[in-house]
Amino acid sequence: MRDAFTDQLDAVHADLARICEAVRTAVERATHALFTGNAAVAEQVISDDAEIDRAREQLEEHAFELLSRQAPVAGDLRTVVASLRMVGELERMGDLSVHVAKIARMRVPQVAVPDDLVPMIGRMAQLAEEMVQQAGEIIRDRDAARAADLVPDEEELDRLRSELFRTLLAEDWQHGVETAVDIALLCRYYERIGDHALSLATRIVFVVTGQPSRED
Amino acid sequence: MRDAFTDQLDAVHADLARICEAVRTAVERATHALFTGNAAVAEQVISDDAEIDRAREQLEEHAFELLSRQAPVAGDLRTVVASLRMVGELERMGDLSVHVAKIARMRVPQVAVPDDLVPMIGRMAQLAEEMVQQAGEIIRDRDAARAADLVPDEEELDRLRSELFRTLLAEDWQHGVETAVDIALLCRYYERIGDHALSLATRIVFVVTGQPSRED
Repeated sequence: MRDAFTDQLDAVHADLARICEAVRTAVERATHALFTGNAAVAEQVISDDAEIDRAREQLEEHAFELLSRQAPVAGDLRTVVASLRMVGELERMGDLSVHVAKIARMRVPQVAVPDDLVPMIGRMAQLAEEMVQQAGEIIRDRDAARAADLVPDEEELDRLRSELFRTLLAEDWQHGVETAVDIALLCRYYERIGDHALSLATRIVFVVTGQPSRED
Repeated sequence: MRDAFTDQLDAVHADLARICEAVRTAVERATHALFTGNAAVAEQVISDDAEIDRAREQLEEHAFELLSRQAPVAGDLRTVVASLRMVGELERMGDLSVHVAKIARMRVPQVAVPDDLVPMIGRMAQLAEEMVQQAGEIIRDRDAARAADLVPDEEELDRLRSELFRTLLAEDWQHGVETAVDIALLCRYYERIGDHALSLATRIVFVVTGQPSRED
């Protein structure tokens, strides 16, 4: 049955999917700045983050209006509250993209990632961005079945992070302390972006079924 | 006017204050494990985190019941939703304590922090723990006026982190890559715990006034 509640909830979900796309763009551009040492692109990620914050505020206002006017219960209520949590995670993913962009900016005109680590960090960045894209599609289509698709990506991110840590802590590490610290932090940022993307996708199970999920 | 809603909201706030105290204990013990290399204490922080997660689930259930049965609007609604966000932050602070404990555990029987950095990392840990304690008191007393007290602590955390990064990236750094990475991550964990504590305290402004805050 379509009613005012359903329409308003659709609008909230469309907002979530749009913010997720803005976050995907932020991850993509931060990664581009990281690998090219392009200061202008890094600056853009940093300044555009305010738009993600504003979009979050607007979505929250819409969700509050919906709760106030419709006073949903049970599954509908859980759905709206889940949306509020999801937009909080999206904002955090935007912040993590800004952290990546700031590492890129700090090393301009050099690049923070040494050549021999570009494949591994590049793969982490690619996985993180793909996970954000998939989360956005899952939100848009409310396709809870696809949430499980993100699990292997998250596991690969975890393996890559472990491997990179082993590399930078090995006896034959040649790139010095500064690069090691940059790489450790980059690993953490991309892994957290992936964690949040998986969490977003998992919450959709909640939104579609109205039931609390184990991961929630 | 006292009514069923007020009583239930008081119960939610008492839960929040209790979880905040559990988080403070986690920060305290993780720091103890870090500076003493005590593996048993580190393990305890890691295993006790499940209790914080369970307490979060229970609080969420109480908040959902409250929203379902009472259908609050305006300021009351914002208060309940703010509580849901606050408990999400508390859970994350528990996770960050676990990260500190895992760094401690990884270096047993050594300690991760070299002697000359104990004062600075110790001060960061102390500030983070104090901020969690203050946030707990502010939640318990719903004392929005005290939220501003946490700002200087957060600024000091930020300064210490910058100073530690300068130290570990300096030419004369003697402790190698592994310690540098540990210190960089520890700085980040304590700083994030402090950020969340400030955010919790700031949300109380919201809870007391029912108005959105700039920082929210």
